[in-house]
Amino acid sequence: MMDDFTFTVAATDGTARTGAITNPRGTIRTPAFMPVGTAGTVKAMYPEQVRSLGADIVLGNTYHLMLRPGAERVAELGGLHRMMNWPHPILTDSGGFQVMSLSKLRKLDENGVTFQSHIDGRRYSLTPERSLEIQDLLGSDIQMQLDECVRLPCTEAESERAMRLSLRWAERSRQAFGNKPGRAVFGIVQGGEVEAQRIESARALAEMDFHGLAIGGLAVGEPQDVMLRMIETVEPHLPTMKPRYLMGVGTPDDILESVRRGVDMFDCVMPTRAGRHGQAFTRFGKLNLRNARHADDTRPIDEASSCPAARDYSRAYLHHLVKSGEILGMMLLTWVNLAYYQDLMAGIRAAIAEGRFDDFVGETKAGWVKPE
Amino acid sequence: MMDDFTFTVAATDGTARTGAITNPRGTIRTPAFMPVGTAGTVKAMYPEQVRSLGADIVLGNTYHLMLRPGAERVAELGGLHRMMNWPHPILTDSGGFQVMSLSKLRKLDENGVTFQSHIDGRRYSLTPERSLEIQDLLGSDIQMQLDECVRLPCTEAESERAMRLSLRWAERSRQAFGNKPGRAVFGIVQGGEVEAQRIESARALAEMDFHGLAIGGLAVGEPQDVMLRMIETVEPHLPTMKPRYLMGVGTPDDILESVRRGVDMFDCVMPTRAGRHGQAFTRFGKLNLRNARHADDTRPIDEASSCPAARDYSRAYLHHLVKSGEILGMMLLTWVNLAYYQDLMAGIRAAIAEGRFDDFVGETKAGWVKPE
Repeated sequence: MMDDFTFTVAATDGTARTGAITNPRGTIRTPAFMPVGTAGTVKAMYPEQVRSLGADIVLGNTYHLMLRPGAERVAELGGLHRMMNWPHPILTDSGGFQVMSLSKLRKLDENGVTFQSHIDGRRYSLTPERSLEIQDLLGSDIQMQLDECVRLPCTEAESERAMRLSLRWAERSRQAFGNKPGRAVFGIVQGGEVEAQRIESARALAEMDFHGLAIGGLAVGEPQDVMLRMIETVEPHLPTMKPRYLMGVGTPDDILESVRRGVDMFDCVMPTRAGRHGQAFTRFGKLNLRNARHADDTRPIDEASSCPAARDYSRAYLHHLVKSGEILGMMLLTWVNLAYYQDLMAGIRAAIAEGRFDDFVGETKAGWVKPE
Repeated sequence: MMDDFTFTVAATDGTARTGAITNPRGTIRTPAFMPVGTAGTVKAMYPEQVRSLGADIVLGNTYHLMLRPGAERVAELGGLHRMMNWPHPILTDSGGFQVMSLSKLRKLDENGVTFQSHIDGRRYSLTPERSLEIQDLLGSDIQMQLDECVRLPCTEAESERAMRLSLRWAERSRQAFGNKPGRAVFGIVQGGEVEAQRIESARALAEMDFHGLAIGGLAVGEPQDVMLRMIETVEPHLPTMKPRYLMGVGTPDDILESVRRGVDMFDCVMPTRAGRHGQAFTRFGKLNLRNARHADDTRPIDEASSCPAARDYSRAYLHHLVKSGEILGMMLLTWVNLAYYQDLMAGIRAAIAEGRFDDFVGETKAGWVKPE
C-alpha cells in the first residue's frame, strides 16, 4: 500500500544490517543518522542543505515544540514538516527525556509527569496519551512512546521501577496511537545497566504491536563498553523485521560499534552542537578549531570531502571565525560535521551491502588516528 | 589596460547616475550597495549567497581585521579575498571610524591615533601610512584614506579642525598609496554640518589624485535632511568622472534620496544587523518578526520575492525562530534583507538607465506604506 510504513532488510553482514524504511513521505536508508532539529530547526543549517547531505529524516523534540511554539499552533501552521520547510520524514521523541533533563519542579507519578517550563515557568503535564497527541499534532511520521529514562549509574531497584513504569506507559502509548496509516510508533527498551531488566523490557515490548523498537536510557553517562554490552544483551530479543533505534547516540565510534551490533537508526546533537563549539569531525579524527595551532594553517579541513565547507575554507579562517564568535563559523562547522556523519552512514550502508563491514570499521578507525 | 581601475557613467537621470567600476577582480555595477563583512564575513551568510544576490563587492573593516586575525596574518593566508572565499572586489575602510567608536583610551595627534583594542586591551597605532599598509596587506581593491570622523552635533571649530586634519591625512594617504595597478584609493570629504567646510574639503580632495571620493561623517546621528543637504552641498564640487561613495548609509529611503543626489556607492550594517535582530526589509516596509502579531501568520514575508528565505518560510515560523534565539532565524532574515537591498539597487540602476528614476522612487516609497 502506498501509505504503509514498511521496513525491509536488504543485506546483513554479521549482526549489522542495511535496508530501508518507507513511508508516504519518503524512504529512510538504514543504518540512518537523524540530525536533531530540536525546536523545528537543525541549528545553523538551511533545510535544503541538511537534505542535500543525504539526511532522509530529522528528529524534532516534543518537549521543546510543546512549549514553543506549542503543539496546537504547529498544527494550525500545517504541521511541523510545513512549518520548518522539511517535506521529508520526521521522527519525534516523546518529550520524557527532556522533561527529566531540562524542566523545573517536575513531579512523576503513574499517570505521567507534571513540570514547569524552563522557558517561562508555565506548568505542563505530559502523559503517554498527551505525548502521542502532541506528536500527532506535530504531524510526526515516527512517534515514540513516553518512557522514564533514569540517569546512570542508579540502583537496580530504581532502574527496575522506571523500566516497569515505562512498560505500562508503552501499553498506554500503543493504545493511544491507535492505527494511523503511514505513521508509526516505536516502543523504548529501558532497564538501566541490568541485563535481566533489559531483556524483560525488550521481550515485553516485542509482544506489543510497535512498528519499531528503540533502546533508550543509554549514552547518559555510562562508559561505552556498558552501552555496547546492553545493546548485545537486548539485540537477540528484538524482532528482526522491525527497525532498531539507539536513542541519543553518539560519536562516530559509538555508531560503528552499535551498527555492528544490529542497530538501524541513530540521533544525536553531537555533530551540530560540536559545530557550534568550534569542533570538526573529519576522516582524520576530531579537530578543535579553537586551538591556536590552526591560526596559520592554510589547509582546508579535508580537501577530499564532499562538503564545500570542508574544502573551500582554510583552518586558519575557521579558527578566526570561531575565536571571533562569528555565526559563519558555526554554520560552516555544523555543515562539515553533518556531512561527515552522513558520509559515514553512506559508507556503512555500502560496506554492509558488500559484506565488508569489518574492513570498513577498521579502515575508518585507522583514519582517525593516522597522522594527516 | 586589463588591470586598470576604471569608472564609467552609462546613463544619468537628473543628478542620479548609473554605470560601472571595473577592476581586475570584476565589475561593480553602480549605484552599488556593499554588504559589510566586518571581520572577514558578511555575518550569517555564506559568501556564495552574498554573491548570488547580486553583490559585486563587499566591505571589510580594517580596524577589526588588524586586531584579529591581524593584517600580516591575513597577508600570509593569501589575502582577505582568499581567506574569506570571496574572489570578487573588496573595499576596506581606513579603520579610523571604528577606532573612534569602539576602541579604548585612544589618543589622537597630528601623526595619527593610538588606542587600545576593545578585544584584549593591546595597544595599537594607526597613521595614514599604516592604514594604507594594512589595507594593502589585506589585498583590498578599493582603499580609503585615514580620516577623523566627529560625531554630530559638534562645534564648528571642532568639525573644522577634524576636516583640516583629514585633508592633511588625505595627502599623506595618497602619497602612501603610491601607484598600484588595478587598485584604487579614495579620499573622504569631512566638514560636519557646515556647508563651507564641506565645500572646502571636497574642493581640496578633488585636486588630489584619488580614484574616487567618499562623503564621510554623515549618518552619525544627524537628521536625514541634514545629511541630504550636505550631499547636495558637496556634489557640485566632486569630479563627475569619479565614483562617489556615501559611507555607512543607510536605510532604503536614505539610499534612494542619496542616489537622487548623485551618489554611486553605499555600505551599511543595517540589513545584516537588522536581520540578526528579527527585522525584515520588504517591499511593504519593515517588519519586526519578534512582534506577537506574526505568531500565527502563515504568509511568507513576500511570496513574489526573488529570495527563497522570503518565499518558503511563514512569518509564524520566523517569529518562532526569532523568539527562540535560533541561528536559522538570523540566517533567513539576513538573507531576506540583503536580497531586498540588492533588488533595490538593481531596480535603481534599471530605472536610471530608462530615465524613470523619479517614478521608481515614488512607486517604491508608496509600496512601503501601502497596506499589504
